[in-house]
Amino acid sequence: MLTKIPTSTLKRLPQYLEVLNQLRRAGLKEVSATKISVFADVHQTLVRKDLAFTGIENIPKQGYRIKDLIKSIEACLNWSDTSPCFLVGVGHLGSALLGYQEFSQKGLSIIAGFDNAPQLIDTVVHGIPVHSVLEFTSMAKQKNIRIGIITVPPEAAQLVADIMIHSGIRAIWNFTPQKIQVPPGIIVEYVDMFASLAVLSRRLAETG
Amino acid sequence: MLTKIPTSTLKRLPQYLEVLNQLRRAGLKEVSATKISVFADVHQTLVRKDLAFTGIENIPKQGYRIKDLIKSIEACLNWSDTSPCFLVGVGHLGSALLGYQEFSQKGLSIIAGFDNAPQLIDTVVHGIPVHSVLEFTSMAKQKNIRIGIITVPPEAAQLVADIMIHSGIRAIWNFTPQKIQVPPGIIVEYVDMFASLAVLSRRLAETG
Repeated sequence: MLTKIPTSTLKRLPQYLEVLNQLRRAGLKEVSATKISVFADVHQTLVRKDLAFTGIENIPKQGYRIKDLIKSIEACLNWSDTSPCFLVGVGHLGSALLGYQEFSQKGLSIIAGFDNAPQLIDTVVHGIPVHSVLEFTSMAKQKNIRIGIITVPPEAAQLVADIMIHSGIRAIWNFTPQKIQVPPGIIVEYVDMFASLAVLSRRLAETG
Repeated sequence: MLTKIPTSTLKRLPQYLEVLNQLRRAGLKEVSATKISVFADVHQTLVRKDLAFTGIENIPKQGYRIKDLIKSIEACLNWSDTSPCFLVGVGHLGSALLGYQEFSQKGLSIIAGFDNAPQLIDTVVHGIPVHSVLEFTSMAKQKNIRIGIITVPPEAAQLVADIMIHSGIRAIWNFTPQKIQVPPGIIVEYVDMFASLAVLSRRLAETG
């Protein structure tokens, strides 16, 4: 069993990874916590604390070897392996995610999409096959899928989550604002665009 | 000048809105804070506190009138008016956002996309015209655009943000994991998918 890493640390790790990849592309080999701190806009004490969770060693006076640090962050996030996953809801957002190249570098490979619209079933979107939702359970069990992405309209999110859990899915990535109820042990993460838009809209109105 | 509402409250308001719209579609006219609490999975004390920020009145023994509560949340988020906005980066994700119908109900109307790829310039994506990034400044000033969406690769995010601010943009909705530096008074909100994916991936690995 792996150590439980705090959520706030986990959310900052991809940001450090972004900085490190840019520094590596710029030709650097080593980096200090202070430099990461400046680029990621996170206090250096916090950067050091976060990176310690990945098990990386800080070489005195040299800082971190960029290549090793990238590896240890990726290992920590389980992004070194690629997990196959299924997506339900092939609308605008779902289609975009099917074509999103970045996921493959973040340990995620969407290998099939599912929808209930007859015009989408048995088509191919950005190279990924789309099937009927009715086939979800048998296909997920056959391929031992553990991650499911929900991009359906919010009112259908709970039903899709229930189907996913019934089919052996262990982690749900929910792109709808709908809170979903799941049994203990099932992981749910939200990408709530509208929560972020709410803050943006209000702050803009507040500044007049 | 409007009161500053806490970020955590603002992030929960869209969730309540979702619940209220579903109850309204189901034919209900009134709702209690307790009921909203159950559906939104937020403690009822917090629901009452959040809703008080919108200025709505709680009718004793009846709770809230759903229609009025929806109106006052939308007014509070400035979602009753529609603000025109520009998007830069018409890749998979950018294209999806251009076609995302939901924004129009959340006070946002993307009226143009911008990219530097010749094959995209002067095309129409999901009914929205796409222009060269070189035209951003003159068009933004002409139409008095205050909101900009960034969906470019992370390494281009800061440059695009600089162009936006130079063009009079006051609020930036950043869909890249790249932290951007802005002068005081400019609002930046992030939709960081990878932060959420990091938590999902690690938690799944932790549970084994």
